[in-house]
Amino acid sequence: MVVVVFRSRLRADAPADYPQLAERMLSLARAQPGFRSFKSFRAEDGERLSLIEFESEEAERAWRDHPEHRLAQRRGRAEFYAEYRLQVCEPLRERRHPG
Amino acid sequence: MVVVVFRSRLRADAPADYPQLAERMLSLARAQPGFRSFKSFRAEDGERLSLIEFESEEAERAWRDHPEHRLAQRRGRAEFYAEYRLQVCEPLRERRHPG
Repeated sequence: MVVVVFRSRLRADAPADYPQLAERMLSLARAQPGFRSFKSFRAEDGERLSLIEFESEEAERAWRDHPEHRLAQRRGRAEFYAEYRLQVCEPLRERRHPG
Repeated sequence: MVVVVFRSRLRADAPADYPQLAERMLSLARAQPGFRSFKSFRAEDGERLSLIEFESEEAERAWRDHPEHRLAQRRGRAEFYAEYRLQVCEPLRERRHPG
């Protein structure tokens, strides 16, 4: 399992089609073999956080390299994001409640 | 480095001293050797997410085992949280923009 932690801030002048593109990327990700889950969160200061789980690092790499996703990543850097930080993480331990 | 991903939902009847206890735990965590960062986020459906970074797995274990934190964890399970899921993760890769 890998957990992708994607923290971002949009530019004030981000193009208006960002939500549609994000929605399209989410539907592509969901269709990706090894996709497990997606959820988005927001901090009080406006920072966005997306958590995406994949079955394996290979599945995450395939998603990273998806051609349409690559184009979206390029637009992300050029047009949408003031900043982002992406961490591809491996869970070492997990606890749940109730167990 | 380790990243702790703590997702939770409070009980509807969680005691009113939860915010003070959470604040106290955050100040203890910040004082912990190896503490790096903390930030909290919220999903539209009310799920809470806290991201905590430590320099090492050892630092995270020491925080997990801190006696006052242990007591708070016990209250968390008994009184505060309807559910939670904690993942202690190791970053495999990281990307930032701007680089």
